[in-house]
Amino acid sequence: MDEHLIESRIDGIEVYDGSFLKVQRDRVRLPNELVATREFIRHPGAVVILPLFEDGTVLLERQFRYPLDQVFIEFPAGKIDPGEEPLLCAQRELREETGYTARDWRFVCTIHNAIAYSDEHLDIYIAEGLTPGPSALDEGEMLDVFTAPLANLLTWIREGKVTDVKTIIGAFWLEKLVRKEWSF
Amino acid sequence: MDEHLIESRIDGIEVYDGSFLKVQRDRVRLPNELVATREFIRHPGAVVILPLFEDGTVLLERQFRYPLDQVFIEFPAGKIDPGEEPLLCAQRELREETGYTARDWRFVCTIHNAIAYSDEHLDIYIAEGLTPGPSALDEGEMLDVFTAPLANLLTWIREGKVTDVKTIIGAFWLEKLVRKEWSF
Repeated sequence: MDEHLIESRIDGIEVYDGSFLKVQRDRVRLPNELVATREFIRHPGAVVILPLFEDGTVLLERQFRYPLDQVFIEFPAGKIDPGEEPLLCAQRELREETGYTARDWRFVCTIHNAIAYSDEHLDIYIAEGLTPGPSALDEGEMLDVFTAPLANLLTWIREGKVTDVKTIIGAFWLEKLVRKEWSF
Repeated sequence: MDEHLIESRIDGIEVYDGSFLKVQRDRVRLPNELVATREFIRHPGAVVILPLFEDGTVLLERQFRYPLDQVFIEFPAGKIDPGEEPLLCAQRELREETGYTARDWRFVCTIHNAIAYSDEHLDIYIAEGLTPGPSALDEGEMLDVFTAPLANLLTWIREGKVTDVKTIIGAFWLEKLVRKEWSF
């Protein structure tokens, strides 16, 4: 039913292979038979963790993001290693970045953050039953860890102080779940 | 107060300048004095339009996104042209992609969708008082336009059928506004 929308690959090459980013350029045939170019980032995928305490507070990070020259409030997150299972990646990233381990893990949803030019997806998990421990940041990885009531996070979103998409979507989902409007 | 987080640019070059994507690679000095590399996409920014009818339905698109080889349900959106004012871009994109014009435009929020490797931001606007008209798609731009109740869109998000971040965030914001939990 989608033949009038779907583009098919003719051929392509990796046009850039950097330290972090890989750029693919393909020639594609459009539904109207025209030929066009599609350039996009190849990304291994990532996970996002929504660490929720019993009192309704959440665990957050403050991290400098160089492309935007700005410190962002974010949920813990990280790239999936080659061959790594996403849930294990989420458990690893939470422990490395914040020191916390969690008793209960539940998958929330998958999101796509840059569908025009990246194949990245993010798998979001809720982590509950949290226990603090030692963090293990990579050399050169700097971030602050702090807690805040979910209501405050939602206020910061409304006020435009939180603009990171994974964090906004995580907060809205948590509110739906805490209010029992949505369930698993 | 953020000296322990902030990275400062030493130098850098554009390492890839493609038809669509530009990749910048900079050397940066970390807070601990180490030197690291940062690679990121330079993006002109984009706008997202949340077209809301008086009966609570919204205007949506179905569009094939090549990097993910998948048709996505999305709110209308588009890249800002050089020097273009974001609101004018939103009005242009809504008209070109759907044919609709709107009487009332209100800014909702700015979001950042790929803070680890892109400087892209998206400015989101609500468009009300909608009037249909002729669309003007670029050659090679194919998409379906359709309407749905906002409640359906939220159900598709809960069920994992809508995964595009700008569309998820737009739907959550619209629900907050329609319920009058949040206001401008």
